Amino acid sequence: MASNVVGPEIERLIQLLARLPGLGPRSARRAALHLIRKREPLLAPLADALRVAHERIVVCSVCGSVDTRDPCTICCEETRDRSTLVVVESVGDLWALERANATRGRYHVLGGALSPLDGVGPDDLNLASLVGRVAEGRVKEVVLAVNATVDGQTTAHYITELLSPYAIKVTRLAHGVPVGGELDYLDDGTLAAAMRQRTVF
Amino acid sequence: MASNVVGPEIERLIQLLARLPGLGPRSARRAALHLIRKREPLLAPLADALRVAHERIVVCSVCGSVDTRDPCTICCEETRDRSTLVVVESVGDLWALERANATRGRYHVLGGALSPLDGVGPDDLNLASLVGRVAEGRVKEVVLAVNATVDGQTTAHYITELLSPYAIKVTRLAHGVPVGGELDYLDDGTLAAAMRQRTVF
Repeated sequence: MASNVVGPEIERLIQLLARLPGLGPRSARRAALHLIRKREPLLAPLADALRVAHERIVVCSVCGSVDTRDPCTICCEETRDRSTLVVVESVGDLWALERANATRGRYHVLGGALSPLDGVGPDDLNLASLVGRVAEGRVKEVVLAVNATVDGQTTAHYITELLSPYAIKVTRLAHGVPVGGELDYLDDGTLAAAMRQRTVF
Repeated sequence: MASNVVGPEIERLIQLLARLPGLGPRSARRAALHLIRKREPLLAPLADALRVAHERIVVCSVCGSVDTRDPCTICCEETRDRSTLVVVESVGDLWALERANATRGRYHVLGGALSPLDGVGPDDLNLASLVGRVAEGRVKEVVLAVNATVDGQTTAHYITELLSPYAIKVTRLAHGVPVGGELDYLDDGTLAAAMRQRTVF
């Protein structure tokens, strides 16, 4: 927008909103106008929530997730199964598994995946603390819930090697047909994997 | 998300972000994670920009737009044509016309359109000050840049009546083929209007 249309403060708000994933310049303008219209019910609380987030969000020293407490809410849950450690690439993946209620195990967030092309090596990931948690001896199974991408699978292989000295089971998520998915729209690799790993009906 | 996955502060941030237009629950979570990851370069500035917006944004007492100054930036521009008053429904429409560099006239923001179904009557719109501005005598033309919707057109007719005592020209935006638009995808009403209002090539 021409910088002479609105004051620099609104312009800056729009530019910052446009940097959120899922918002482009146009939707950032719409969001800014919406915020200005909903000044007390939305703008003020959001400003406050962001300030609180900025002041209080920390990375969990146990699992690498983010929360306003350390250890995080999940690591503090005493009912969580200490023998199962679910390794994920990102906090978003952890949240997705929690929404799906997929496990009662504990988590470990790597903070990414090995990616030689992007210059992400083992030292850039939360791996030392993963080995440390396994070395404590209470973990019986590590579930590698990494993405089914080249980088994710590379990371899975690397971690499998890394944990080979320990007497634990290392598993990975099943490949197969997504629930509700139609075969006709699936890629060949998924279909072949689903056939290979078919189960008794 | 299950409320036991993250602390209430992050949960609240996600819920507030989900109330922005264009962001659903899923993209709000993505946005929150993005903000947490970009703590210093994005979260802190956005929190600050929202606080500033909350403290400083005011409605312009002249035109009804929003800005951090009153009268707003556009109303203060001395080079703006005082004889042309462009009436828009919303601040978003004003910004759109400014981006298009469509006029050097001044603006008047109604704050909506007449809508009997939604209970929006003349008293809910910024109409008294519009008449006041026209009555000052410097305005020669009022351009009704309202939406081409039923409500917008109702509003346009109402304003035309309202301004009939004054010796000014009341105009509206042309209907026609959008620039870059393909005839095959246009609705019948637009095509018929474009044909009726055809101009010499």
